[in-house]
Amino acid sequence: MTELMQQVYEANMQLPAHQLVTYSWGNVSAIDRESGLMVIKPSGVAYEKLRPADMVLVGPDGHYQGPLRPSSDTATHLALYQKYPELGGIVHTHSPYATAWAQARRSIPAYGTTHADYFYGEIPCTRPLTRQEVDGDYELNTGQVIINTLENRSPLQVPAVIVAQHGPFCWGTDAAEAVHNAVVLEEVARLAWLSCQLSQQPGAIPPYLQNKHFNRKHGKNAYYGQK
Amino acid sequence: MTELMQQVYEANMQLPAHQLVTYSWGNVSAIDRESGLMVIKPSGVAYEKLRPADMVLVGPDGHYQGPLRPSSDTATHLALYQKYPELGGIVHTHSPYATAWAQARRSIPAYGTTHADYFYGEIPCTRPLTRQEVDGDYELNTGQVIINTLENRSPLQVPAVIVAQHGPFCWGTDAAEAVHNAVVLEEVARLAWLSCQLSQQPGAIPPYLQNKHFNRKHGKNAYYGQK
Amino acid sequence: MTELMQQVYEANMQLPAHQLVTYSWGNVSAIDRESGLMVIKPSGVAYEKLRPADMVLVGPDGHYQGPLRPSSDTATHLALYQKYPELGGIVHTHSPYATAWAQARRSIPAYGTTHADYFYGEIPCTRPLTRQEVDGDYELNTGQVIINTLENRSPLQVPAVIVAQHGPFCWGTDAAEAVHNAVVLEEVARLAWLSCQLSQQPGAIPPYLQNKHFNRKHGKNAYYGQK
Amino acid sequence: MTELMQQVYEANMQLPAHQLVTYSWGNVSAIDRESGLMVIKPSGVAYEKLRPADMVLVGPDGHYQGPLRPSSDTATHLALYQKYPELGGIVHTHSPYATAWAQARRSIPAYGTTHADYFYGEIPCTRPLTRQEVDGDYELNTGQVIINTLENRSPLQVPAVIVAQHGPFCWGTDAAEAVHNAVVLEEVARLAWLSCQLSQQPGAIPPYLQNKHFNRKHGKNAYYGQK
Repeated sequence: MTELMQQVYEANMQLPAHQLVTYSWGNVSAIDRESGLMVIKPSGVAYEKLRPADMVLVGPDGHYQGPLRPSSDTATHLALYQKYPELGGIVHTHSPYATAWAQARRSIPAYGTTHADYFYGEIPCTRPLTRQEVDGDYELNTGQVIINTLENRSPLQVPAVIVAQHGPFCWGTDAAEAVHNAVVLEEVARLAWLSCQLSQQPGAIPPYLQNKHFNRKHGKNAYYGQK
Repeated sequence: MTELMQQVYEANMQLPAHQLVTYSWGNVSAIDRESGLMVIKPSGVAYEKLRPADMVLVGPDGHYQGPLRPSSDTATHLALYQKYPELGGIVHTHSPYATAWAQARRSIPAYGTTHADYFYGEIPCTRPLTRQEVDGDYELNTGQVIINTLENRSPLQVPAVIVAQHGPFCWGTDAAEAVHNAVVLEEVARLAWLSCQLSQQPGAIPPYLQNKHFNRKHGKNAYYGQK
Repeated sequence: MTELMQQVYEANMQLPAHQLVTYSWGNVSAIDRESGLMVIKPSGVAYEKLRPADMVLVGPDGHYQGPLRPSSDTATHLALYQKYPELGGIVHTHSPYATAWAQARRSIPAYGTTHADYFYGEIPCTRPLTRQEVDGDYELNTGQVIINTLENRSPLQVPAVIVAQHGPFCWGTDAAEAVHNAVVLEEVARLAWLSCQLSQQPGAIPPYLQNKHFNRKHGKNAYYGQK
Repeated sequence: MTELMQQVYEANMQLPAHQLVTYSWGNVSAIDRESGLMVIKPSGVAYEKLRPADMVLVGPDGHYQGPLRPSSDTATHLALYQKYPELGGIVHTHSPYATAWAQARRSIPAYGTTHADYFYGEIPCTRPLTRQEVDGDYELNTGQVIINTLENRSPLQVPAVIVAQHGPFCWGTDAAEAVHNAVVLEEVARLAWLSCQLSQQPGAIPPYLQNKHFNRKHGKNAYYGQK
């Protein structure tokens, strides 16, 4: 697990490097599918004091080992890993543009090819959690609402959901890819925000342009990048 | 007092580090409750020239020792320390997003959990000062209007007020926490500003979500951070 | 070609230096008119790993030499070089303000002298590509639509076009000038965006002010800069 | 003059340090009132290549010495120095928020105390220059329009004017103060821009608050800063 802890540490440190977080906000996790153990940032520790050995090991039932408590969002991460076996890393931030869409309770439409390169279709915003969901097992219910929002869409085709009144959760096949997607989400959210100030109805791109760009980068006919 | 002067110096230096101030704008103070002495930044001194020994000691009546004059906002700080014994540090900035809300004379609604993590309910904007208040003991009256605006709310549950047409004052149990809250206020003000451009009426979060998040971080049942 | 590869490498490295790109986005090319060979960034390689020797040589027919694949936008660059013999360098980015105009499908009006110093008249936005154009030879058709949008205007008088729902393409007499124009385009797009938030109809500058500023910097009567 | 050239060099280098300029845009000058000679940045030279010895000496009639041509805005600077003997330094930039107000052709109202600390009343925007003014001695006429816009206001009480469709000119008693005012202008323009997005009519501050803040920092009863 030392290697995975190192990876999760490095992925967490990318959050301040890309200016996605303030103080100790945000968290990244990864999962070891063989043992079923999740590695996640400890709760409320400042990034500049974080060390690889501080990463917390958490079992599928939420129990953890070691002296540090895991992120308070641990149950959200676990719910997503349990539902989607294809996920290897998850990240949560309060990055400003994505959070603004969350606070306005709006899904982010696919206004351009930058979006289409990474996200297949709109990036959905969840419904607000009910009082029962908030008063109950809040973090688990947050995961459940994300899952309900994704419906039948593949999480690797839509590697982010924004939680209404809260902020984004992103993911990927490992921790580094999850953070990569969080950086791209913030840039896509910013582009969409900027576009909305120039036009009340920018209009989503047509399906054939969405397909063209997503498939330039993903799948067997991808031709972006090196072989 | 040397230690407190060092703390206040370091807290002041966090203002340019977090890009909350331009040139010599802004000031941080702390109070030694035993002696009743307040330590505050000298007026109009550039941050890059500031030294710990430059911090000014001010008595409850506003008299100060040493060669440097205290911040011109000294009387505002003193009024707040006198009214609220739970305060240990106070900070004033003209940070851009918080100041924009002040210039628009609008309180900042709680649009999301980032806000709710730190501020219990909206961050209130004062009424404008009257001509009598401005022409009279202006800085003292600024403190009085902040106190009136807080009404019966606890200053540690609402650790910031924005003064109409002016800018924010923030506080905490010590100088470092006051600056921490000033950084968070600016980020929360920015998130709210961004949200307002996406939706005319984002709508405040419901009380149960406010309670959930504030109590995750504050009080005896808090479970954010380490024990 | 080693010298041209070095120039193209350096021009590409200016994109992250000027914060015009995220991760591996964007690409710069230059052409050697004598041999007809184009030098362009390899596809999907991170800027921090890029070396001068990684630049890809591409013939007029799109065939390339060496182990690395050229940028996926290669056919767009080739179409522009073929049409406009005066071009020596081309750059494509997803810089945020220019891309916002592209996503809003709006041309950028000449609102001020900053624009007029570099661009003669509005910076046009293309029409969206049709389904046939996207499903067919997409990158070639992107170049064709840019050419159609420029109509009879000189590409060195209008050194940028924004592709609807996509982003900007810029050019110049060499790779460095193309990147210079991409930086200026982003700043001009930002100024125009900011202006539109202050006034619904800022109004374009009159032709005599456009002429005055463009001709201060261009042509035989230019008097900006050193002789 | 060597000392003044050094001062003007250092003031110019503050423009990129405060992110007020792109590439070679912008210029700072100072005047030696005894000899009547103005020292100004050479035209179109990149800041990273600028040296103190490159500063250009210009006589009141616009003639200059040495190998480098002075800024193309030289005649604007000279007109202002001739009209206002109290000016010792002048700066011109295309800083983004101030330029956005210029492009929207709007004066910047005094929305708050940050503005009032430095500018007495609104920062006026000129009328657009006429065709005759642009086709004639353009830079001299730009100075004349600034002078007309200031009317009977003191240039040291309103140390900036924004030229419609162009950008700001700022000044002070020396080059360093002029640049200081240019930095503050940009911040004030940004605060006002942000405020306008929160409220259609933020409303200017009342005269007694303007007086209070301006006089805290200026004149014989000033009590901001050190004696």
